[in-house]
Amino acid sequence: MIIKKNPEQLEIKHNMRGGAGDIELTHIAESGVLGEHCRLFSQIRVKPGDSIGEHQHLGEQEIFYFIQGNGIVIDNGKKAEIRTGDVMITPDNASHSVINTGDEDLVFIALILK
Amino acid sequence: MIIKKNPEQLEIKHNMRGGAGDIELTHIAESGVLGEHCRLFSQIRVKPGDSIGEHQHLGEQEIFYFIQGNGIVIDNGKKAEIRTGDVMITPDNASHSVINTGDEDLVFIALILK
Repeated sequence: MIIKKNPEQLEIKHNMRGGAGDIELTHIAESGVLGEHCRLFSQIRVKPGDSIGEHQHLGEQEIFYFIQGNGIVIDNGKKAEIRTGDVMITPDNASHSVINTGDEDLVFIALILK
Repeated sequence: MIIKKNPEQLEIKHNMRGGAGDIELTHIAESGVLGEHCRLFSQIRVKPGDSIGEHQHLGEQEIFYFIQGNGIVIDNGKKAEIRTGDVMITPDNASHSVINTGDEDLVFIALILK
């Protein structure tokens, strides 16, 4: 089944997890397709200066794959610079945040597995 | 945990599934991280004119999210044009192939869920 790019995939989250700005989530597939072991498979776009606030994952792990831009993350309490091609793995019980410190959109793929 | 972009993520498959050229797979996370319900989470790069041959998935489903370029797929027997932002969902027992018919690399994220 082909799903052509469409506005219904897009969700805007204002001040996501206490962060700054409007975060754009493009949902690649819905829960009915992903099944019980995958909670989210989305592309996330963070504009320059915007951020997703620090938060913990419980009963699941999240993997970020950065495909454009650069920024700073808090990776379970440790600050790190990230850029295109880097991966952040946040295991069950761990926490993270993301800040776009660059001058272009920071774009990444997010996958949550249970 | 941050995994900086590195050559160990990259796998080259020649004539993948009977297709043309050298297909580049960047493995975002390994099986030990993905667990028993996710077999693959990778970025796939197909150069202009190259292809992944038609093949069937059994006991799993695959989701492609196209992030660059354009091409043609055989989506379970039906030919379709795809471009950036499109999604192809290949359920259990279904088949697919991908051909880069454009003049830039065709890049997509592939997720296999069991």
